[in-house]
Amino acid sequence: MSIATTRHVLCLNSGSSSIKFAVFALGAAGEKKRAEGAAERIGQSVGRLWLRWGEEQAIDRQLALPQQQDALKAVFAALAEARCATPDGVGHRIVSGGPRHQTHCLVDNQVLSDLRASLRFAPLHLPAEIAAIEAVQAVWPHIPQVACFDTAFHQSIPEIASRLPLPRNLWQEGVRKYGFHGLSYEYIVGRLPNHATGKTIIAHLGNGASMAAVHNGQCRDTTMGLTPTGGLVMGTRSGDLDPGVLLYLMEEKGYNAGQLERLLNHLSGLLGISASSGDMQTLLKLRGGDPHAAQAIDIFAYSARKAIGSLMAVLGGLDRLVFTGGIGEHAAAIRWAICRPLLGLGLEIDPVANEDPELRISMPHSPVEILVIPTNEDLMIARHCHRLLPTREHRR
Amino acid sequence: MSIATTRHVLCLNSGSSSIKFAVFALGAAGEKKRAEGAAERIGQSVGRLWLRWGEEQAIDRQLALPQQQDALKAVFAALAEARCATPDGVGHRIVSGGPRHQTHCLVDNQVLSDLRASLRFAPLHLPAEIAAIEAVQAVWPHIPQVACFDTAFHQSIPEIASRLPLPRNLWQEGVRKYGFHGLSYEYIVGRLPNHATGKTIIAHLGNGASMAAVHNGQCRDTTMGLTPTGGLVMGTRSGDLDPGVLLYLMEEKGYNAGQLERLLNHLSGLLGISASSGDMQTLLKLRGGDPHAAQAIDIFAYSARKAIGSLMAVLGGLDRLVFTGGIGEHAAAIRWAICRPLLGLGLEIDPVANEDPELRISMPHSPVEILVIPTNEDLMIARHCHRLLPTREHRR
Repeated sequence: MSIATTRHVLCLNSGSSSIKFAVFALGAAGEKKRAEGAAERIGQSVGRLWLRWGEEQAIDRQLALPQQQDALKAVFAALAEARCATPDGVGHRIVSGGPRHQTHCLVDNQVLSDLRASLRFAPLHLPAEIAAIEAVQAVWPHIPQVACFDTAFHQSIPEIASRLPLPRNLWQEGVRKYGFHGLSYEYIVGRLPNHATGKTIIAHLGNGASMAAVHNGQCRDTTMGLTPTGGLVMGTRSGDLDPGVLLYLMEEKGYNAGQLERLLNHLSGLLGISASSGDMQTLLKLRGGDPHAAQAIDIFAYSARKAIGSLMAVLGGLDRLVFTGGIGEHAAAIRWAICRPLLGLGLEIDPVANEDPELRISMPHSPVEILVIPTNEDLMIARHCHRLLPTREHRR
Repeated sequence: MSIATTRHVLCLNSGSSSIKFAVFALGAAGEKKRAEGAAERIGQSVGRLWLRWGEEQAIDRQLALPQQQDALKAVFAALAEARCATPDGVGHRIVSGGPRHQTHCLVDNQVLSDLRASLRFAPLHLPAEIAAIEAVQAVWPHIPQVACFDTAFHQSIPEIASRLPLPRNLWQEGVRKYGFHGLSYEYIVGRLPNHATGKTIIAHLGNGASMAAVHNGQCRDTTMGLTPTGGLVMGTRSGDLDPGVLLYLMEEKGYNAGQLERLLNHLSGLLGISASSGDMQTLLKLRGGDPHAAQAIDIFAYSARKAIGSLMAVLGGLDRLVFTGGIGEHAAAIRWAICRPLLGLGLEIDPVANEDPELRISMPHSPVEILVIPTNEDLMIARHCHRLLPTREHRR
């Protein structure tokens, strides 16, 4: 039996407040999403479980999901209720495997133990991701699992860009730029015409947001750093800061690590500036009558423009800019606000194409091509899982 | 008696480890530096006091300078010994006056009291600067003093660039981007041909380093933030960081505010990367045989390149780049390392002119003009002091 046989892969994207899942069938007949769904609002008074099967909304109900374990059980129950076949493999999105794991791999005891030892590199994300691997082990002990790292795409970043300007012993213990959103970047690079030759910036703009500078398909630098708190201004995260700001908050206002973590990950960015919402669609609706909402949008676009300039300097020029992610794909006003002031750097955005993008949103003569490409991180996880699964003969 | 009368101004640049001074004569006959000198190595076992009078090295001696007060006394004694006339005014370089004072001004009791209340905005610098004002008051109680703020030049930065992506109450208490090296930027703008029309980036690169984006002479953005720790990679300072790095150091390694302050201001940057020196000239000598020194230089240039790209995006293009400051004026290899990879963005550096710069170091056809202009912050302080001093009639 060859790898071309159709196999079903369950993709899990596990966080502390939601678990998203998708089932793909992959093989000689192509790639097809069979089902998708989520267990949402974990820990809130009323949670939600939904599952869509093909075009049909098979399950959508409210229920209590006090803890992540309850949400995982609800997901397995929903898959059984919808009569999804037991998957041939389960692929997990893992935000960071620290310095030890940056290449997508089959999960064995060593990998799991390494992930447990890497908690400090993603304390907000890894616990839920490890719990999901363990839950799958308990339900389907013989189904292989694959860890797909959001840091994997960034392994080609040269040391000049990944080394932080700190004492060398910190690099040795893994304090460096890792970069995130790698599954999205991988997917986009695969979708680019001509195999992504030349100089490309990919802007993955969502509630979390980052950009990557890609040369001939290889990542050269990215805006996020050791953690997903760095880089661009985001929904509720600050992005990079003068470290003197944190020293001020500690020394003058007595902030401890927990208060800083909450401030910089959950109360900053668009939410901090607008004082009303960290959600871009909400702010776009508010901005006509709310100057703080308008200012938050302006600062988001300003931060993105500066990052584009910075990554153009990394690449020594630019052939194309690609927008993806929730904001990048759907917020025409943000794409316009980012690109229009960059006319002098060769980005000529087409106002008509930008409003209803198919792919290209730059003018035909624009020196820099500007594209909108919807991302598909789940499919990327499914592909890696399919590629890494042992053949059935080998397993048995 | 008009403002055109020649007046003598003493300029003081007071830090915790040294006090630099200069005496200028300004008036209808022009601007002339009469004397300069410094009290250095305060708090070390052997200090140094020197004064140069015209071309002559009038004083150069070793002596104990246990505290800043001793150094101030030594400066006054040296001026008396060299028979410098009592100055008509004293100008002070003040790194930051916080949100209340960003315009150069005569020092009165209110200003002094405001500065004392602004310590938290420059805890490493303001104490020594305030002490110098007080020492001058004690010696020459009737001589007017002028505060020249390194933040003054940056008042034209629009709020979109100076507001940090943090909750709005922090802006109200003065947590924002101020920018520094303003006296240097002011001086350079005054030296630019055609009154600095168009889009200019000024790179002030020294042990402390920053850049400013200037449009038609007005500052639009700068790399330093709330404090001089932010922005570019510097001699011993980190520059901007993913705040997650500080959270990691606090949570995983138990760093407190004092340890973080020491790490990020005194042990990072070129010193942290090279593990040998934070001094660029030293690193340039070492780099042939020391890969860590070479890497520190590469990362410094890389950080500077990214900032140039970022500020080009702020300006929407670039007409000229100006290098100044100790490294910017004297390290041809660094100017080359910064500019050469930016050929694709229109910066064509001339390798011959760069080695021995008079003014222009770009090729004649380069879309972006590249200049080297020595800075003169003391002269800028003297000019502001001269301008702001009351006329003698008014004073008496």
